[in-house]
Amino acid sequence: MSTAEFEKRTVDPAAAEMLTAAGEAQILTSWDRYKAQQPQCKFGLTGICCRICIQGPCRIIPSRPGQDKGICGASAYTIVARNLVRYIAGGASAHSDHGREIAYTLLHTAEGHAKDYKITDGKKLIQVAEKIGVATEGRDEIEIAKDVAVKALEDFGKYDHEPCTWLNATIDEERRLKFKHTNIAPTAIDRAIAQLLHQTHIGTDADPVNIIFGGLKAALADYTGMSLATDLTDVLFGTPQPVLTEANLGVLDAEKVNVAVHGHNPLLSQMVVYAARELEKEAVAAGAKGINLVGICCTGNEVLMREGIPTASNFGSQELVIMTGALDAMIMDVQCISPGVKDLCNCFHTMLITTSNISKVPGSVHIEFNETTAMEDAKKIVKLAIAQYGKRRPERVKIPQLKKQVVGGFSYEALIDLFAKINPDSPISVLTDAIAAGEIKGVCAFAGCNNQKTIHDHATITIAKELAKKDVFLVSTGCAAGALAKAGLLSTEGVEAFAGPGLKKFIKRLEEHSGLNAGLPLVYHMGSCVDNSRVARLWSNMAKNMNIPVPQLPFVASAPEAMSEKSISIGSWVITMGIPCHVGVMPPLEGSELVHGVTTKIARDVFGGYFIFETDPEKAAEKLYERIEKRGWKLRVHKTAAEKYNSSPARVYEG
Amino acid sequence: MSTAEFEKRTVDPAAAEMLTAAGEAQILTSWDRYKAQQPQCKFGLTGICCRICIQGPCRIIPSRPGQDKGICGASAYTIVARNLVRYIAGGASAHSDHGREIAYTLLHTAEGHAKDYKITDGKKLIQVAEKIGVATEGRDEIEIAKDVAVKALEDFGKYDHEPCTWLNATIDEERRLKFKHTNIAPTAIDRAIAQLLHQTHIGTDADPVNIIFGGLKAALADYTGMSLATDLTDVLFGTPQPVLTEANLGVLDAEKVNVAVHGHNPLLSQMVVYAARELEKEAVAAGAKGINLVGICCTGNEVLMREGIPTASNFGSQELVIMTGALDAMIMDVQCISPGVKDLCNCFHTMLITTSNISKVPGSVHIEFNETTAMEDAKKIVKLAIAQYGKRRPERVKIPQLKKQVVGGFSYEALIDLFAKINPDSPISVLTDAIAAGEIKGVCAFAGCNNQKTIHDHATITIAKELAKKDVFLVSTGCAAGALAKAGLLSTEGVEAFAGPGLKKFIKRLEEHSGLNAGLPLVYHMGSCVDNSRVARLWSNMAKNMNIPVPQLPFVASAPEAMSEKSISIGSWVITMGIPCHVGVMPPLEGSELVHGVTTKIARDVFGGYFIFETDPEKAAEKLYERIEKRGWKLRVHKTAAEKYNSSPARVYEG
Repeated sequence: MSTAEFEKRTVDPAAAEMLTAAGEAQILTSWDRYKAQQPQCKFGLTGICCRICIQGPCRIIPSRPGQDKGICGASAYTIVARNLVRYIAGGASAHSDHGREIAYTLLHTAEGHAKDYKITDGKKLIQVAEKIGVATEGRDEIEIAKDVAVKALEDFGKYDHEPCTWLNATIDEERRLKFKHTNIAPTAIDRAIAQLLHQTHIGTDADPVNIIFGGLKAALADYTGMSLATDLTDVLFGTPQPVLTEANLGVLDAEKVNVAVHGHNPLLSQMVVYAARELEKEAVAAGAKGINLVGICCTGNEVLMREGIPTASNFGSQELVIMTGALDAMIMDVQCISPGVKDLCNCFHTMLITTSNISKVPGSVHIEFNETTAMEDAKKIVKLAIAQYGKRRPERVKIPQLKKQVVGGFSYEALIDLFAKINPDSPISVLTDAIAAGEIKGVCAFAGCNNQKTIHDHATITIAKELAKKDVFLVSTGCAAGALAKAGLLSTEGVEAFAGPGLKKFIKRLEEHSGLNAGLPLVYHMGSCVDNSRVARLWSNMAKNMNIPVPQLPFVASAPEAMSEKSISIGSWVITMGIPCHVGVMPPLEGSELVHGVTTKIARDVFGGYFIFETDPEKAAEKLYERIEKRGWKLRVHKTAAEKYNSSPARVYEG
Repeated sequence: MSTAEFEKRTVDPAAAEMLTAAGEAQILTSWDRYKAQQPQCKFGLTGICCRICIQGPCRIIPSRPGQDKGICGASAYTIVARNLVRYIAGGASAHSDHGREIAYTLLHTAEGHAKDYKITDGKKLIQVAEKIGVATEGRDEIEIAKDVAVKALEDFGKYDHEPCTWLNATIDEERRLKFKHTNIAPTAIDRAIAQLLHQTHIGTDADPVNIIFGGLKAALADYTGMSLATDLTDVLFGTPQPVLTEANLGVLDAEKVNVAVHGHNPLLSQMVVYAARELEKEAVAAGAKGINLVGICCTGNEVLMREGIPTASNFGSQELVIMTGALDAMIMDVQCISPGVKDLCNCFHTMLITTSNISKVPGSVHIEFNETTAMEDAKKIVKLAIAQYGKRRPERVKIPQLKKQVVGGFSYEALIDLFAKINPDSPISVLTDAIAAGEIKGVCAFAGCNNQKTIHDHATITIAKELAKKDVFLVSTGCAAGALAKAGLLSTEGVEAFAGPGLKKFIKRLEEHSGLNAGLPLVYHMGSCVDNSRVARLWSNMAKNMNIPVPQLPFVASAPEAMSEKSISIGSWVITMGIPCHVGVMPPLEGSELVHGVTTKIARDVFGGYFIFETDPEKAAEKLYERIEKRGWKLRVHKTAAEKYNSSPARVYEG
């Protein structure tokens, strides 16, 4: 690919610089592989290729008798629905299995078997315990932690008929009833996933609507797993607080041992942070100026949020971190680590170190991470990186001098603390009052990945800028936050450049009272992709404060560059919660008008939330804003009516 | 399709007759839809189409740089392995979710909430309780049943680190160690499934061997779910005993209300049997000569085994039962019910009644089955069928007068009882002694489905005849048993026609002592597809009796017409147990030589069992026999050596 071509494929200047170098060196990256895959199979793209049994693959051609259904007789709508919900099953499995590991570690910490871990945030532990009904009065932290961990593990496999604890404890009565009436409240995370696979087995469910409802149950299992993951991670490692850092390839330091943590689960990456600090001298002894730890994807977000570790790249540009020639080791845990990084490692001196027994890459070094020997493992890994530094070829080091300031660390608690500086009695009112007053119009949460079907980072940044201009308060998680970080939107610079007058006034007011020694950013980084649970907490408490159900809240979500199964499962629970959710990449469901209609229209009638599929970022921004504005308007009308007639606002869905 | 063409697509004469009629009436069946799907996508057929994230679909072209990997960089071996094990996840989910329903019903029966159910086989309950370590001494059945049911439910979601109870209790020490060392013993069924989806999420595991081991863990979860399903079903409804019945479309009765039960889970179909008996008079009042219940697929096998209900068809020919014009209602529960049956119902008067909340078909009648109102639901359903009888159009009734006698009901216990008539002290020795003496050469178990990629029923019947001729003792389950039943191989007629001299002698000896009022069959029907757990029990106890590990036993398995995800999960645990397993349809793994090699060769080194992929039935029979013969020969050599040197036989894998 030529430079000009690459420039059309990313808006990240550091990525563009690296891609040009890759092109010159004839090194293939995901950009090249995407191009090589064109044209992609239309059957697959629209969801009408079925491989659920080995009579297949069956490909549907609606106009052709005999081929308008699969061999078994499955219609396009059945096939599309099954394929779609199996993505949810995959996503829910990934998130929740990550949560399970955290829960085990908390349990083993409480039992004294995971000695390198401790209860860092005792206050959060108490809050979580109280939320889920674990007794706290007069009990010590260890006892409480054990009970909390057991409750979490039970949420995966309990066999009673009650909804999962973390689900029930974090939604309001209106949603509890809604989920009960639609029979989509999971009673156990793993069961919802396994049952969904059963439901979509050949010759089981042929009803697309029923299949989608099964999918939504698994999506709520995903929510459950994510919620407990966030909670327990905060207990173990601390609840994030505002932190100053940087993002993009320029965070690599040619004079230091550069180590990237990549993946999702902080159980190891957090230990690597500690280990790197302890081993600083060894790096110096090896001739480096120290150790420079950087993050990629969501394990990067975890250590950014808690430790201020800078972000080197998001999903899309992960290979390019190696392309700098300055990365000595890439430490991977689980999820979204492109196997392509190994090919890049083969071209450079970078050592790829795998650490999970369910996540290996042929040819890489495997140091199995174990919670009972966590610090030892982490040190072993960092020492390998230091040793690798000696193999670096300085003439191949080419670090783009591009990076942006990032103010991150806005957990739900950190945001509330910020609001509390203005209104200590009712912190969330600072946000809701600003909405009620029309100073800001509502909230949009960005989430999700990068996807080669879109221009790298472009859609996320475009929509964020558009909405900021229109006074929408913005939060973000995951690789979307990575895109915004690299574009300077997680910095004060972003406020100056892109906030509309109301939003700027709102942020400046927060800033005045913040007591922080840095300015506040345009977009508030709430964490990794499992931390979308923090976003849900934000909207839940806004709705509670405003005395309205969530589906009336001027709150929208957007995954402009959705890619993974996780993004589909998150989007699915977001809509069941009553939040409209934009997705900027067309998922494989155009093969069935019915399924498309269920996700974009029927979902609205039933849950208040629904999908907005729009690949044009400017149009997407318009659609999201239109939704926020309409909900805001209805809210003000209802509020006026309620005040006039002295009754509570009408509980109807606006959608 | 022409008659001649159909004759090439099935060896079932009744099916051929019906297909000709379908062709004349221009009614499309799965045969036509299969033809319409030709040519099938080569990427899908060989496993190198990846749709695990929505950057895809990616299709691998090994020779084309850039397209030799997926966009993320996943190699063909990663993609093939992931696709393959996700089939296992689907299969394990289906089987085990079925088992879960049975476990809940046993629990609720013990708690008094499912009043239409009872503990029918108290002896089996005690045996199961003792096997899994539930106290029985001085306790009443209800208490024991409750504990057993709880243990079963815990096997789905417990969070300790011990292998599943039903797995550990049913394998020998050699396999326990093998599974421990290879880390494939599941600790909870649902967890193994969810974790496998996580492992195969984008950017998690790229190592095909590691992925396959993850898949084997889910396969053993499948085994666990099946084992407990069989055990608890026997407790609830009785352990099958030899029973005389018939198979093929000729079992339909033009003068009666014909009701087909179709699917897998006997919780409902067994109740339908009871309800039909009670409502016989209502059918007569409606002008029929009574109610004629028939079975399709495995719920049919369940009621065949326990109640002697005749089999109308297996998976492949399910639509043709409706084509007779004489079927008044088809009652479906879960799995392998082609949605195509609804199209046939639309052409005839047959009412399709769905009964599971995860298994619906648009346009059909849904009567949700509930264990607390089981009998009431079953009666409601049978009454609908009776009412439907009045809508039958006699001029459209065309029942092929073709059926075969079936001697079924050979649970493991029934086989042992049969052997005990000859050797009450050590019944299984009757079988193992015959093998040691060379009278019979070994055992082959048939399982699996029909698949339009093969000639309907042909491969199963061909291989069975070939092996029978060579004195191999044959057992069967599932739709393979259906094929053999319709061909008369589950009858005494089969013995006369196809048994080799040794096998005939062996069966006749059993027959003489049997005390049954019918002759014994050529092939022994052991039940539904979950009842492959009975087959595992047979080989386990043979090995124990012979004092050899399972991988030395002259025992093979064959799924000549595998189709469903379940068949892949069964095959996978069969090989981990040490049994060579033939599959007559090529699963999608030819896209990776490595994965192909792991399943056919490496598996043999590690587990003793391995896959034999062979689409030619005659060649398959040769390969299976060669394996039996070699294992038998080694056994005799070892035995001689052991006797000579007064030591136990060498515990090496023969494979």
